[in-house]
Amino acid sequence: MRSAARPIEGGSLVDVAVRAVRDHIRVQDLKVGDTLPGEGHFATQLGVSRAVMREAFGALAALRLIDVANGRRARVGAIDGSVMGTSLDHAVSTAQVSVAEVWDVRRTLELRTADLAARNRTDTDAAAIISAARAMRAAPNIDDVTRSDIALHQAVARASGNALFFQIVRSFEPLMIVAVPLAWQTRETEQARDEVLQRHADIAQAIADRDPKGASMLMVAHFDESIREVL
Amino acid sequence: MRSAARPIEGGSLVDVAVRAVRDHIRVQDLKVGDTLPGEGHFATQLGVSRAVMREAFGALAALRLIDVANGRRARVGAIDGSVMGTSLDHAVSTAQVSVAEVWDVRRTLELRTADLAARNRTDTDAAAIISAARAMRAAPNIDDVTRSDIALHQAVARASGNALFFQIVRSFEPLMIVAVPLAWQTRETEQARDEVLQRHADIAQAIADRDPKGASMLMVAHFDESIREVL
Repeated sequence: MRSAARPIEGGSLVDVAVRAVRDHIRVQDLKVGDTLPGEGHFATQLGVSRAVMREAFGALAALRLIDVANGRRARVGAIDGSVMGTSLDHAVSTAQVSVAEVWDVRRTLELRTADLAARNRTDTDAAAIISAARAMRAAPNIDDVTRSDIALHQAVARASGNALFFQIVRSFEPLMIVAVPLAWQTRETEQARDEVLQRHADIAQAIADRDPKGASMLMVAHFDESIREVL
Repeated sequence: MRSAARPIEGGSLVDVAVRAVRDHIRVQDLKVGDTLPGEGHFATQLGVSRAVMREAFGALAALRLIDVANGRRARVGAIDGSVMGTSLDHAVSTAQVSVAEVWDVRRTLELRTADLAARNRTDTDAAAIISAARAMRAAPNIDDVTRSDIALHQAVARASGNALFFQIVRSFEPLMIVAVPLAWQTRETEQARDEVLQRHADIAQAIADRDPKGASMLMVAHFDESIREVL
């Protein structure tokens, strides 16, 4: 199905130029990696200056709708959780959204990714998830624990088979890099830390065992504990 | 809690400039609406050209991290679901994500917003939700049905009390503008359409009645029907 180019009433020349490029992608039914006409083509077609078109391409690149890496011809961009990640990071650092609110959203999404992963995971997915859980236990320091924790949650989201869940879960990465070590520090004893590691190992196993109910219940339990630590 | 400015290894001069502005916001603990130093200030501080700084400000404005409306001094931007909405719209129109995948994500999030709304709604929230359900029934045409349907789902998300849920639900608006009329067209009889209207009225009533379980179960039922129509 096609999605709409939402008409923006009025707007600056740059907005008009941005819309024209988005319309071109939609109408020509372009896919990721397809090349776009140059700035000059659009400038002529729209009757706007090259400077306006350059700004429009810059905005489109910032939103990852187009990819202009290395001065090559612009191409249609792949969906990229980092755009939402940047928004989220900004919203939290300017106190518009709290970490507890983000964790509630994560809990909501990831109980579903755990369920779907248990249903849809390939053997490669299961191996990646189990491997991340093991790496988390073997990690020599908190940075490595955090890295493996992030890898595990992203591998579960990828295994869900739904590309949008995966990109949204990826967008939490900047916040996890900060919040996971803080939560870890609230767990001072060996036993308290072992509980977290075991929880992740159990989630991984439930997904490997194709147990949707077990996987999602364990994920909820994990977040309920984790939200208490974040608060 | 502070969030991290994620270090991007390498990157262009514009990337460095973007990062410097984001660091400034974080380190100075700026909030929405606070003014930023001008492009010239950052250009001097970083030893980059005004043109680089202009591109960086353009990228930050595209991501709504800063607001440069009407040529005023740049200010810290408010979180805005339209950035994620643009990503989503692009991902669907370039077939990177299917409408069915988006609807699964919506279902997952909105069963939680319905639950939270029933717990946290103010009287003003409840009135807005009930009013949207009534407007949906009274709508003289499909465009008005769609508008009220969108308003209802956003009012529920707002009533959840979690700003992030609200912004994510807002981001679905461009897709709903296209998908709601298509789903509506699959319902050809008066009775089939009445079921959808009644479902929305029941969700609104459960939230007004502060019934989290009822509200979330009705929302799930609504999406399970709606996903069948979208497929």
